[in-house]
Amino acid sequence: MSAKNILYAQSGGVTPVINTTAAAVIESARAHPDQIAGVLAAQDGIIGALEERLIDTAQLSDEDVQAIAQTPGGVFGSCRYKLKSMASNQREYERLIEVFDAHQIGYFFYNGGNDSADTAWKVAQMAEQMNYPLQAIGIPKTIDNDLAVTDNCPGFGSVAKYVAVSIMEASLDVMAMASSSTKVFILEVMGRHAGWIAAAGGLAQRAEGDPPQIILFPEVPFEQDRFCAAVEQSVQQHGYCSVVVSEGARDAAGQFLADAGTTDAFGHKQLGGVAPVVANIVQQQLGYKYHWAVSDYLQRSARHIASKTDVEHADAVGRAAVDMALDGVSGQMPVIERLSDEPYRWQIARAPLSAIANHEKKMPDDFIREDGFGITPRARAYLEPLIRGEHYPTYDVHGLPEYLRPELALVPPRLPAFEPG
Amino acid sequence: MSAKNILYAQSGGVTPVINTTAAAVIESARAHPDQIAGVLAAQDGIIGALEERLIDTAQLSDEDVQAIAQTPGGVFGSCRYKLKSMASNQREYERLIEVFDAHQIGYFFYNGGNDSADTAWKVAQMAEQMNYPLQAIGIPKTIDNDLAVTDNCPGFGSVAKYVAVSIMEASLDVMAMASSSTKVFILEVMGRHAGWIAAAGGLAQRAEGDPPQIILFPEVPFEQDRFCAAVEQSVQQHGYCSVVVSEGARDAAGQFLADAGTTDAFGHKQLGGVAPVVANIVQQQLGYKYHWAVSDYLQRSARHIASKTDVEHADAVGRAAVDMALDGVSGQMPVIERLSDEPYRWQIARAPLSAIANHEKKMPDDFIREDGFGITPRARAYLEPLIRGEHYPTYDVHGLPEYLRPELALVPPRLPAFEPG
Repeated sequence: MSAKNILYAQSGGVTPVINTTAAAVIESARAHPDQIAGVLAAQDGIIGALEERLIDTAQLSDEDVQAIAQTPGGVFGSCRYKLKSMASNQREYERLIEVFDAHQIGYFFYNGGNDSADTAWKVAQMAEQMNYPLQAIGIPKTIDNDLAVTDNCPGFGSVAKYVAVSIMEASLDVMAMASSSTKVFILEVMGRHAGWIAAAGGLAQRAEGDPPQIILFPEVPFEQDRFCAAVEQSVQQHGYCSVVVSEGARDAAGQFLADAGTTDAFGHKQLGGVAPVVANIVQQQLGYKYHWAVSDYLQRSARHIASKTDVEHADAVGRAAVDMALDGVSGQMPVIERLSDEPYRWQIARAPLSAIANHEKKMPDDFIREDGFGITPRARAYLEPLIRGEHYPTYDVHGLPEYLRPELALVPPRLPAFEPG
Repeated sequence: MSAKNILYAQSGGVTPVINTTAAAVIESARAHPDQIAGVLAAQDGIIGALEERLIDTAQLSDEDVQAIAQTPGGVFGSCRYKLKSMASNQREYERLIEVFDAHQIGYFFYNGGNDSADTAWKVAQMAEQMNYPLQAIGIPKTIDNDLAVTDNCPGFGSVAKYVAVSIMEASLDVMAMASSSTKVFILEVMGRHAGWIAAAGGLAQRAEGDPPQIILFPEVPFEQDRFCAAVEQSVQQHGYCSVVVSEGARDAAGQFLADAGTTDAFGHKQLGGVAPVVANIVQQQLGYKYHWAVSDYLQRSARHIASKTDVEHADAVGRAAVDMALDGVSGQMPVIERLSDEPYRWQIARAPLSAIANHEKKMPDDFIREDGFGITPRARAYLEPLIRGEHYPTYDVHGLPEYLRPELALVPPRLPAFEPG
């Protein structure tokens, strides 16, 4: 049997380190030319696979691959597209197998979250049904840290570090200004369904009373009076108040605070943005001068402040996926297994995609402090190792990171254009 | 004559590197014990000087001073407070001289922008009128880069680096997602009156068509139709559009696109939130999925991505101020003089405060591209050296920067409490 290709695809929102995983797959595959012919990458994720838009990574030099490893974003493009169930759209699954067959693909690596684990799992089943020899392997990635089984998700640690460092820095700013100016600073972070990223802001607190004094989690219903009382107390005690708010913060009825909206100078309702809503509450109820920031994409692309632990995880899952391919494994995902908090020790294990697909890992209740405004020592013990260490990109002489956006040619198509079912 | 003390005070909005200047003043003064008895710092800027809240920096070890040099925010506290004219409130100036006299202060170092240069200049005049021997020296600081005479302001280079790196990173994110999701990303940056910081976003463009494709400057009246056409063209050509918008962006009538309607102590309008306004326009006029970020305090406290050039400038102006004190100079400011763009060479010169006070350096017209949406090669030649080099803070074992917030005791007051006139 001749060596087959890997098809590698990125899925969903990108992370500061998903390209580290991509580079690890490519590098690792190159070390096994007898078993792995090459690595094709789908352009724009699974959509590119369906449309036969494939990139032969052989056009990347070893140096290019190293540069990709330190580049944020998704170098081959990602997409937000979930394959339908096999019952409702079998055609998509069949098409994937046809594309695999046309390009000698024996390994399908899908780098994403729990939707992607589901897709990889279904593709594995379809290949079996169609008698096509395929090993489908999921590779974990998500800043939301909501994958089951794995102790944490590559991507989350770097976002966590960005958030912890950023709120620490901005708090030093508001502290300096509070006596005569801004007294309340509000930082909005991602995490629509779970407070993992907001919790990371709590790592900036090294002693009691340290900023951020308040974290607003999606898990804790927002009560305006309690919030205002906590802001007031912090201002009285420390002279200022530093707040981290999750985009998923909601009231007791489950209504997102962001949906309350604010209006701009033109009377237009402003779209998105829970931070300005919280700032408005502070202004109207307490009258304090405030500042607010929304980090949005900045947080999940901030490769310049990546966590070394996170980079190591992202690299390890990529290499492990290749090892699993070489070992004949299918329908599984390399996961991170924590052996101890302190010293932090971890290893890669293997888990069935069926245990990961469509599950969502919630933050444990005992990670949130009794008053609902901070994290517990248990949360700290879990989170802290994930932001340890710095792994800086290299910079050019102009003072900018050497991020690579290679111009990549597509493999000539071998099939008719895809007609969705 | 016995050695006198320096009184050092921080003024206005803090920067990622104002503490580098503070540390340089303290370190440099310690090297001259025969001429300089010590450095007192005013708590919360000039307000602390008026209220005789003074910190003796002798309580800081040499290691503390080094840690302060890499800490963002304002370690002694700053304030937004402008002394009134001498005619309308002579009492404040007299009080300052009384405080100086009570604490053997022979040197007043005021670290701030053009308002502070004005204050330092007036204090020098008052001292002369009152026959009090004082050398008043201004030290430049402002992220707005709007001081006259000096080629650039310490603080600006690091903010510029943060903005250039951040828009480069976030653009890689939107590029990866654009085929099926977000097509327009908007980053709001500071710069109330001038587009210096917004212009820095242009440094991320290394080739034509690179992001950010659009910069909205305060200097260029916003025209919705032209803006929408430019967004549309970028999406057609590149698949996405990356936008940097200055908080000071305004329409042809001079109306700020975003206006929170509050004012700060100087009577400046408090801005923030132009990004969601621009996002609204994109959504309503073009229907593209968008994301937006407001970096706010994050940009001016991001010591973790400080520019090495900027750190060197901030250190140099602090040391130069001490040299000027030793040389008997008063009523002047150390400024940065550019000797050449490439290779970038600079030196410290001395300029009279009268030439700096109350002036505002506008961005030259020929820094903005003909179409109003980008920067020119001349702007690049000016800006680029200012973001060169990385100067990282040290990190602790927990993965966080070793920023110092020392608990500092106040010198016991020697005067009655200040009663404002």
